[in-house]
Amino acid sequence: MKFKGLVVAANTPFQSDLELDLERIPSLTDYLVGQKLAGLFVCGSTGECSGMTAPERKAAAGAFIKAAAGRIPVIVHVGSDGVRESQELAAHAESAGADAIAAVAPYYFRPGSVAELVDAMAQISEAAPKLPFYFYHIPALTGVNFPVLDFLKAAEKRIPMLAGVKFTYENLMDFQLSLNYDPERFQLLFGRDEILLAGLALGAEGGVGSTYNYAAPLYHRMIAAFRQGDMETARKLQLLSQKLVLLLMRFGGSAGKQIMELIGQPVGPVRPPTRNTFETNAELAAALRAIGVAPYLGGELVIGDRIGA
Amino acid sequence: MKFKGLVVAANTPFQSDLELDLERIPSLTDYLVGQKLAGLFVCGSTGECSGMTAPERKAAAGAFIKAAAGRIPVIVHVGSDGVRESQELAAHAESAGADAIAAVAPYYFRPGSVAELVDAMAQISEAAPKLPFYFYHIPALTGVNFPVLDFLKAAEKRIPMLAGVKFTYENLMDFQLSLNYDPERFQLLFGRDEILLAGLALGAEGGVGSTYNYAAPLYHRMIAAFRQGDMETARKLQLLSQKLVLLLMRFGGSAGKQIMELIGQPVGPVRPPTRNTFETNAELAAALRAIGVAPYLGGELVIGDRIGA
Amino acid sequence: MKFKGLVVAANTPFQSDLELDLERIPSLTDYLVGQKLAGLFVCGSTGECSGMTAPERKAAAGAFIKAAAGRIPVIVHVGSDGVRESQELAAHAESAGADAIAAVAPYYFRPGSVAELVDAMAQISEAAPKLPFYFYHIPALTGVNFPVLDFLKAAEKRIPMLAGVKFTYENLMDFQLSLNYDPERFQLLFGRDEILLAGLALGAEGGVGSTYNYAAPLYHRMIAAFRQGDMETARKLQLLSQKLVLLLMRFGGSAGKQIMELIGQPVGPVRPPTRNTFETNAELAAALRAIGVAPYLGGELVIGDRIGA
Amino acid sequence: MKFKGLVVAANTPFQSDLELDLERIPSLTDYLVGQKLAGLFVCGSTGECSGMTAPERKAAAGAFIKAAAGRIPVIVHVGSDGVRESQELAAHAESAGADAIAAVAPYYFRPGSVAELVDAMAQISEAAPKLPFYFYHIPALTGVNFPVLDFLKAAEKRIPMLAGVKFTYENLMDFQLSLNYDPERFQLLFGRDEILLAGLALGAEGGVGSTYNYAAPLYHRMIAAFRQGDMETARKLQLLSQKLVLLLMRFGGSAGKQIMELIGQPVGPVRPPTRNTFETNAELAAALRAIGVAPYLGGELVIGDRIGA
Repeated sequence: MKFKGLVVAANTPFQSDLELDLERIPSLTDYLVGQKLAGLFVCGSTGECSGMTAPERKAAAGAFIKAAAGRIPVIVHVGSDGVRESQELAAHAESAGADAIAAVAPYYFRPGSVAELVDAMAQISEAAPKLPFYFYHIPALTGVNFPVLDFLKAAEKRIPMLAGVKFTYENLMDFQLSLNYDPERFQLLFGRDEILLAGLALGAEGGVGSTYNYAAPLYHRMIAAFRQGDMETARKLQLLSQKLVLLLMRFGGSAGKQIMELIGQPVGPVRPPTRNTFETNAELAAALRAIGVAPYLGGELVIGDRIGA
Repeated sequence: MKFKGLVVAANTPFQSDLELDLERIPSLTDYLVGQKLAGLFVCGSTGECSGMTAPERKAAAGAFIKAAAGRIPVIVHVGSDGVRESQELAAHAESAGADAIAAVAPYYFRPGSVAELVDAMAQISEAAPKLPFYFYHIPALTGVNFPVLDFLKAAEKRIPMLAGVKFTYENLMDFQLSLNYDPERFQLLFGRDEILLAGLALGAEGGVGSTYNYAAPLYHRMIAAFRQGDMETARKLQLLSQKLVLLLMRFGGSAGKQIMELIGQPVGPVRPPTRNTFETNAELAAALRAIGVAPYLGGELVIGDRIGA
Repeated sequence: MKFKGLVVAANTPFQSDLELDLERIPSLTDYLVGQKLAGLFVCGSTGECSGMTAPERKAAAGAFIKAAAGRIPVIVHVGSDGVRESQELAAHAESAGADAIAAVAPYYFRPGSVAELVDAMAQISEAAPKLPFYFYHIPALTGVNFPVLDFLKAAEKRIPMLAGVKFTYENLMDFQLSLNYDPERFQLLFGRDEILLAGLALGAEGGVGSTYNYAAPLYHRMIAAFRQGDMETARKLQLLSQKLVLLLMRFGGSAGKQIMELIGQPVGPVRPPTRNTFETNAELAAALRAIGVAPYLGGELVIGDRIGA
Repeated sequence: MKFKGLVVAANTPFQSDLELDLERIPSLTDYLVGQKLAGLFVCGSTGECSGMTAPERKAAAGAFIKAAAGRIPVIVHVGSDGVRESQELAAHAESAGADAIAAVAPYYFRPGSVAELVDAMAQISEAAPKLPFYFYHIPALTGVNFPVLDFLKAAEKRIPMLAGVKFTYENLMDFQLSLNYDPERFQLLFGRDEILLAGLALGAEGGVGSTYNYAAPLYHRMIAAFRQGDMETARKLQLLSQKLVLLLMRFGGSAGKQIMELIGQPVGPVRPPTRNTFETNAELAAALRAIGVAPYLGGELVIGDRIGA
């Protein structure tokens, strides 16, 4: 299994009282399928993995798998602060029919060496022995930052199901070196939407990201321009995506979920400690129009009501 | 409730196959009661909180509370990477009869401001509305590092049950300022065993730590010397504790559990990603004797067999 | 003045006793001119700015300017840990005939805000009022890390001679946003040789780097391939440059100067605290051949004698 | 030479146009001698070392040595971003009659190991072969952070004149371990005024700091109380010093020099990138009175005119 194109890091829908909103998942999945994405990455950072309990994570993952119904592959993120819980989630994902699993490094007690990291990942992978396993490299959130190239070298024999890495980090030299380490076996999924064009230039074939939830058309056109050698257009679209990301940073933690609401795909509020700022929906819609990204969104901009806690 | 003296950050006992060893908890608790400690802090960092699933944490906390049987107050750590799970653990702790709860800041998505930190802690405290709540400040593990003084000012009205802070950080100016902010209400528990004497000098009345599991006699004597104005003796004992901590660093992540085994109070191996090094037990025992700490341990040094995974 | 192509961060030649080797500068400059570079960046990080006294920096800069003799533009780096010294160096650079100056942020007492950074840079620029000024953004060495986009916005009026930024950092979103802020006025020089292809994809027209001292042919071909739309070849050459950088990291701080010696352009040892490892010259030459970079070097590989301290 | 009590990190006086004010040094030195200090530490961080050129540093150091005239020992800080310049400053200090020298680790290219740090310090010490040498450990400014205990072990033979360490860091375990490593030979000067009491408890005999410029009486009384076993009084005075430090942080980089002006010992403005805020003098004076520190200052509070740039 290789992912060509955009894998979306899906949101987990919550109700306005912050309870899990499982009933929203089928229609959300239909929408995402319609966005021509290459895969669903569920219960990841965008999916607020750490804000959910283990039973909630299982329920959400199961609902996405069922809703996808084979139309699109589903990668279930099972990473957590501890190996034991991740093993449980991995076993559940396999039994629920996931296409692959992924895991971040443990992030309370952090592995002190590449060997310790590989051991932890191996134990998680062994709990879902039939599923391809992706290591999810995201040092900004985990505080674990070993070169992925070193990880691949140490893990290739120890983790038989290792299929690749979701690479959410700025060290693009490590990215390209890892991409070329064993390209037949390992796929490197580029995790920085805002510089996907750089990743493509260095050889990425696929990316995983959160802005693909609502701005997939922008990136589809960017990738097409890049493939046609039209770097000028590709750059303009990437610049637009960067202005979008600046807005996300300015509007705060719930801005992604706000945009989903603004395009008619509400997924509810975010859980603490992230703060909800749905009262800025109208302002955010205006800002999206102002930078010119509105025509590239996954739906038409409508100004929604405030729904957050 | 004020803790005068040493609160021990208890280990969670595991079997050699890494399963939770609930049956070991009563005798371990008896031993700790015999060490004249001021309280038990369970399911904290030393208790490998992040390595356990939520059901395991509840089971372990319940077992410690039952074993303590009112002989010693029990603080249950309910902190985790997310608020939802911590609320569940808090509610359980209250129903199980805990004397207090404590929580670290969320550490995957980290609060971006003091206000967000206070909000998250408030929501956890509200889930155990009758129990005193302690914020557990440990930036090295959580990556969350706001001045505790600012936290106290922002939280005093927002968290009615806030009773204090377990302060595991090197900023001793922030420690003393916080200690003096509202000393009637807030207790600051000093969390660095290796410089407890500095904490005492600045006004600490109690400490929470992991070396009190096996070296409480050393610290009892140090505190007594300090209270009597015998700084020379107090310093010598503190220096000895520092040499002990150097050994822990040199021998690695399971060294604390190894020492428990060496003094006849085995609590089993550590869970990943921490690495077990029980094969060094004999070497560790020799090192403990060499630095002269053996007479100050909670039990006689015996060289145990290797039990780790 | 816009730099299209490769600006080389030149070494400062030292004698084997670590004294400044001014006599070596003319022939070194001739060699660099022959490498078809777009500019010389002298007394920068590669030039060991912080290892030289102010008089030495003036002497070296003057010698490069004289040797260049108008054949190639010379940017003199005048940044230091303090504004006063940088002002002296700036005034000297202007009087000596430099084409432009550049400066890093002060790095002992660091600017605490963008405004303080801009003020410091403005005062340096004012000391060379006729020369284009480049801010040299290199957070790994200075510890100063504000978004360059914010710097440009705050500096555009305050620093009339501001002409651009040498951008030596991984945040490529900030790079592209800055590149597009005022492209008529500000040039962004890409400072990461090992991912120059990513910079080109995002719109960079020029780069400043140290590996261009000895591997300019590799990058010339890479840029040509990129311009022709031959991404496959461009990627292969970038990968080769990354393997070269891995070697530099493995062989340590003097590896760049060792390669210069190996290709017949000796520039002597490095000053402390960087360590000289010229005893590994033969091993380094073999490694360069093994990764296949030898045909792309600026001269033929010869195994030199050890010259370091 | 052992320093018992308070060594003051002296300010370098500047004129209102930011030029060096050498003429102010004699009367400033007289004032400091009157504060019953154990030594003058000149051209250090408080002395704005990095803001001065090398000739300015020599001039300032020479003026302090001359003004001290044997009444108080003078330690000249010669550390800089490079070894070469520090060697020049060291040689000058020796020829000018300094009692000792001190140096921070190089902080642009940073030593990558304890061995590289020791080598750099050794080369500086060798340039003043007759003077006691102190390593100045201040990771917050240099970014160099190896355990001082490891430094002492590696340096004791390599640096014959090594006499101790100015320890400006929070790791008090490393402080006490280093203090006890070879107490006959090495003195550890405690560098955190705001927690000096913690340092005294752990065994410090002397401290070096900036608040001793204007608040020496407070610390003299605190030390006396500590020596008499009156911890209650000592704590109250330390708490007062912490409130003073909070003010310094709130009022910004020039607050220390502002207080000197307020007590009738003006030393002029600070150099960039630190910002002058002398317009807040009246507010600062009111704040000093409000926290109750006024009676413990080195002079009576007078509200001065604004003098900064």
